[in-house]
Amino acid sequence: MKKAAIILGSDSDLPVAEKCVSVLDRLNIPREVRVISAHRTPDIAREFAAHARANGFGVIVAIAGKSAALAGVIAAHTRVPVIGVPVKSADLGGMDALLSTVQMPPGVPVACVAIDGGANAGWLAGRILAVDDDDLAVRLDDEAAKMSEGVVKKDDEIRARFSQ
Amino acid sequence: MKKAAIILGSDSDLPVAEKCVSVLDRLNIPREVRVISAHRTPDIAREFAAHARANGFGVIVAIAGKSAALAGVIAAHTRVPVIGVPVKSADLGGMDALLSTVQMPPGVPVACVAIDGGANAGWLAGRILAVDDDDLAVRLDDEAAKMSEGVVKKDDEIRARFSQ
Amino acid sequence: MKKAAIILGSDSDLPVAEKCVSVLDRLNIPREVRVISAHRTPDIAREFAAHARANGFGVIVAIAGKSAALAGVIAAHTRVPVIGVPVKSADLGGMDALLSTVQMPPGVPVACVAIDGGANAGWLAGRILAVDDDDLAVRLDDEAAKMSEGVVKKDDEIRARFSQ
Amino acid sequence: MKKAAIILGSDSDLPVAEKCVSVLDRLNIPREVRVISAHRTPDIAREFAAHARANGFGVIVAIAGKSAALAGVIAAHTRVPVIGVPVKSADLGGMDALLSTVQMPPGVPVACVAIDGGANAGWLAGRILAVDDDDLAVRLDDEAAKMSEGVVKKDDEIRARFSQ
Amino acid sequence: MKKAAIILGSDSDLPVAEKCVSVLDRLNIPREVRVISAHRTPDIAREFAAHARANGFGVIVAIAGKSAALAGVIAAHTRVPVIGVPVKSADLGGMDALLSTVQMPPGVPVACVAIDGGANAGWLAGRILAVDDDDLAVRLDDEAAKMSEGVVKKDDEIRARFSQ
Amino acid sequence: MKKAAIILGSDSDLPVAEKCVSVLDRLNIPREVRVISAHRTPDIAREFAAHARANGFGVIVAIAGKSAALAGVIAAHTRVPVIGVPVKSADLGGMDALLSTVQMPPGVPVACVAIDGGANAGWLAGRILAVDDDDLAVRLDDEAAKMSEGVVKKDDEIRARFSQ
Amino acid sequence: MKKAAIILGSDSDLPVAEKCVSVLDRLNIPREVRVISAHRTPDIAREFAAHARANGFGVIVAIAGKSAALAGVIAAHTRVPVIGVPVKSADLGGMDALLSTVQMPPGVPVACVAIDGGANAGWLAGRILAVDDDDLAVRLDDEAAKMSEGVVKKDDEIRARFSQ
Amino acid sequence: MKKAAIILGSDSDLPVAEKCVSVLDRLNIPREVRVISAHRTPDIAREFAAHARANGFGVIVAIAGKSAALAGVIAAHTRVPVIGVPVKSADLGGMDALLSTVQMPPGVPVACVAIDGGANAGWLAGRILAVDDDDLAVRLDDEAAKMSEGVVKKDDEIRARFSQ
Repeated sequence: MKKAAIILGSDSDLPVAEKCVSVLDRLNIPREVRVISAHRTPDIAREFAAHARANGFGVIVAIAGKSAALAGVIAAHTRVPVIGVPVKSADLGGMDALLSTVQMPPGVPVACVAIDGGANAGWLAGRILAVDDDDLAVRLDDEAAKMSEGVVKKDDEIRARFSQ
Repeated sequence: MKKAAIILGSDSDLPVAEKCVSVLDRLNIPREVRVISAHRTPDIAREFAAHARANGFGVIVAIAGKSAALAGVIAAHTRVPVIGVPVKSADLGGMDALLSTVQMPPGVPVACVAIDGGANAGWLAGRILAVDDDDLAVRLDDEAAKMSEGVVKKDDEIRARFSQ
Repeated sequence: MKKAAIILGSDSDLPVAEKCVSVLDRLNIPREVRVISAHRTPDIAREFAAHARANGFGVIVAIAGKSAALAGVIAAHTRVPVIGVPVKSADLGGMDALLSTVQMPPGVPVACVAIDGGANAGWLAGRILAVDDDDLAVRLDDEAAKMSEGVVKKDDEIRARFSQ
Repeated sequence: MKKAAIILGSDSDLPVAEKCVSVLDRLNIPREVRVISAHRTPDIAREFAAHARANGFGVIVAIAGKSAALAGVIAAHTRVPVIGVPVKSADLGGMDALLSTVQMPPGVPVACVAIDGGANAGWLAGRILAVDDDDLAVRLDDEAAKMSEGVVKKDDEIRARFSQ
Repeated sequence: MKKAAIILGSDSDLPVAEKCVSVLDRLNIPREVRVISAHRTPDIAREFAAHARANGFGVIVAIAGKSAALAGVIAAHTRVPVIGVPVKSADLGGMDALLSTVQMPPGVPVACVAIDGGANAGWLAGRILAVDDDDLAVRLDDEAAKMSEGVVKKDDEIRARFSQ
Repeated sequence: MKKAAIILGSDSDLPVAEKCVSVLDRLNIPREVRVISAHRTPDIAREFAAHARANGFGVIVAIAGKSAALAGVIAAHTRVPVIGVPVKSADLGGMDALLSTVQMPPGVPVACVAIDGGANAGWLAGRILAVDDDDLAVRLDDEAAKMSEGVVKKDDEIRARFSQ
Repeated sequence: MKKAAIILGSDSDLPVAEKCVSVLDRLNIPREVRVISAHRTPDIAREFAAHARANGFGVIVAIAGKSAALAGVIAAHTRVPVIGVPVKSADLGGMDALLSTVQMPPGVPVACVAIDGGANAGWLAGRILAVDDDDLAVRLDDEAAKMSEGVVKKDDEIRARFSQ
Repeated sequence: MKKAAIILGSDSDLPVAEKCVSVLDRLNIPREVRVISAHRTPDIAREFAAHARANGFGVIVAIAGKSAALAGVIAAHTRVPVIGVPVKSADLGGMDALLSTVQMPPGVPVACVAIDGGANAGWLAGRILAVDDDDLAVRLDDEAAKMSEGVVKKDDEIRARFSQ
């Protein structure tokens, strides 16, 4: 099975990355976690991306804040699908990282998820790897069903609590 | 080979969709184009999404403007990866559609691309379908090389034009 | 008398919902509180909305954050008036939910109130149900008079405190 | 049957108002159209609002741009439900009018629709008046069905056009 | 000497008002502080504004948050200059109140100062009342000189602290 | 009678200035129009401001776009009230000039009006000069009455046009 | 004398680049103009930057729109000062490119100028190269004086035109 | 060696300035720290700027929040390169200071860095002073190498921590 890579632009982004790791582990998707900076270790970013497919990666999650070039820089050196997670900042709430991540020029796509959306980066990675993997697709269906059940249970609780 | 679906929330989004179709055709990816509204034909959206995998779709591109619920509604009814394309509006420039498309809750991911980013929706669809398709991966590498050559050619022209 | 429904997209939205419940109870409007997710339990959302009028609901309040599709999805399956309450988020302050809720396409209206505006959702529900209910209209007038008196009392306190 | 009022803050808002009139006429809802300025003719705004219910109005649509106080000022003087339509401006795209209209304080609700959303103001007015009017509710269902059919027709055209 | 009025839309705006009072007291400008709501006590707002000049007010400071109609409503009923102070909100940081206060239509001007800018409302009131009052103009010059001295003192401290 | 100064940061701001001149002329307020740049002719700005009161100016209107330092720079060198008019830009719609103009630090107030609000700068100047000038106050009342009549006339036209 | 490089992310950015070229030529600063894409020709960007100092460049101007990674990518591979020019886009007015360009992480600085600010990129390049070049500093002083004179001339024209 | 000046608009900006001082000290760049307000001590700002080159300054860092005129005012009176650091505010997150600092008119450039980007102001100052200083250029290369090593070390830690 192809692996997922999770690349953090800075180790301060770890809480967002952990939400992604948690989802991938729940889906039994093998993964590696790295700290690679588009601006401070650009050559490592390039090397990693250029050999990602050959090294067995089927999807790459790039997590970065502020000017957030990481996902785009990775996507420039590979054709493996890249998921970008913009990280919330203290000043502009993550609007900077969101726009930097999502507004990519034609030909070098990044799949952007929500600000601090580490979990959805994991779920999206799962969906991408499930395209040709029926077992994983079933696991995703099961997880979706569990989420529905969780909402239904909350619904029961709230209805009871507010019944007149 | 799995197909790509392109869903327009309104036929006014057609110019954005055509950029996507053009990329998919260039990559020889079979595709279908539909007009389905999350708000006006919600049952068709649900039916389409619920059977998308069984009907041979490997990726779904949802194009919508303003409150742009389409990608999320599709993603709620399937586990096929959904790419969302926010469409520019006359008033807020597409910021509304961008936030509606990208800020999805955990468990129901949408892969958001740039405002009016129909072309990148196509390129991202290509990358997703290429995860387990080496031929398509090679075609994507070829296209990337062509894009590089295009930039190099422009570089030559501009350098000549501004040489002192 | 027709009932009001309060639908939460997530039980984390409960503090906003309670402000709405409190107003409805003050106005003696019968109400039900539910947790239904546009993205995680979309079929329940559809079923609820499709039978809302038949089940005696005269107005539906939908409370949701981030991409906030809930109010629009409900409004797509019923003609009962839907009030949308965008919920504040930690990153963008609720601007995402506000735009998702308010920028609906023609034909599927949502009555949007302020970010975290649970109380005004209740007051607006009261106004809507009072259109053909003179008793409720009188109760609304009484409440408005009480609010005026509250401001006048504060005015007296502040004037006294700052008199020179 | 109760009437709808459409109040324009300025006659330059007429194109937005006409979309509302068109919907109301399609639904056979009696309506009056007025130009009343919250800032230039505030006493007329007050008089109109204070007697709106007695004069047979069941809903009031207030259309205004920029600092857009109109809907709130009307809502301060009546308990008839008020729908606010923020108008697009040349500079900030209507974000000013949107925030002015939607961010109302508790107790004085305004039902805000999309920027330039005159049509949805009409559809929302219809939903509000239909709460206790089964005939109007049926007309709204019919119109929703027609809109669905319109989308289905467009879907057929687009599918044919892009069939491979 | 003409008086200044400070009108709070809500007593929660008191901390902003106190900054204004403090400046006015420093300048020996007589002032009254009131709580008047554009939406909850609109008739009192109208009465106050309509008689402001006759009652000896030379300038009115209106402090309000969110949809912040107060300054504009006051300005609609008087020709006394009105200074608007937008108040910071928990969700949008005061951008809503700022746009509501500043984007007034031609003919009904509001002099908008910074978000939570109670102090500058006081300083601006002082400048306005000083147009025809040479003594007050001198006091303003004195205060400006004191502020300059305060900065110079800080400059000396910081230079010393960081001298190499 | 004290004069009004209208300072343009650039002659490209002339259309905004002309709206201000037109209002001042209607009110018979003597005025001078200047082009002074806070960044290109800062010494002239300083000289002008420092002698504005002595030269008979009772109010200064500063019109500038983009980083819009003009109003603040003028206000730093005088205690005459300064009205700032932010000018719309092609990129950010004037949000840059608005924030630069309105977010002044305590002690150096600027009275900010709407983006491109040249007319309201004139009306506000009139209100300020009318504080101690009863004749001007009467002229302002007359103009307000004319504006009301204009709205009433439009109201009559629209009512007639849409009568059923 | 050290050279300036002007790097365009796309040849569609040429109008912005020409404003920069024009200023550099006026200052007699030798320059080269290139088209290099951070995303499409990333290896050329890296090579260019890595050898920029050795190749005689004293400053690099990077012009790019949308997610605008160019300036940061260049700055990651050199210690030559990099000036970033965000380019206006049709949807968000250049806010995306502005935030991408300016919000760089510590250690990899970019000197950001205004949206579409090609001219100021040239002037800033001139100032940087003039730090150790007295002749260039004198030329910059001369140009500043000419700009002042231009404003003074406009001032004379406008004063004459509006004299009463 | 030429010196760097760090100018704070207010001593409340000190935490941002200290990040800049720390970088300059690390690079052995002589520096002075001052508190000078564009609005409260404008004449000192002017004097400082006008003599900055003669006094041995090769670069000036101006740190200011809100309407943030400081960098532009300094740049208006000198041709020494000016780096502007917008400071985060409690209400708009620093968007006001960012736009005020970066959107300068042609001819008076400011090199804007990130909100609260004191460190990068220091790094950029270093790059500017290194243009003609090979020793400093080597120190900058060394620091960049250390930053890369820091990221690599973090990468090793995270990889080990998440190895499966």
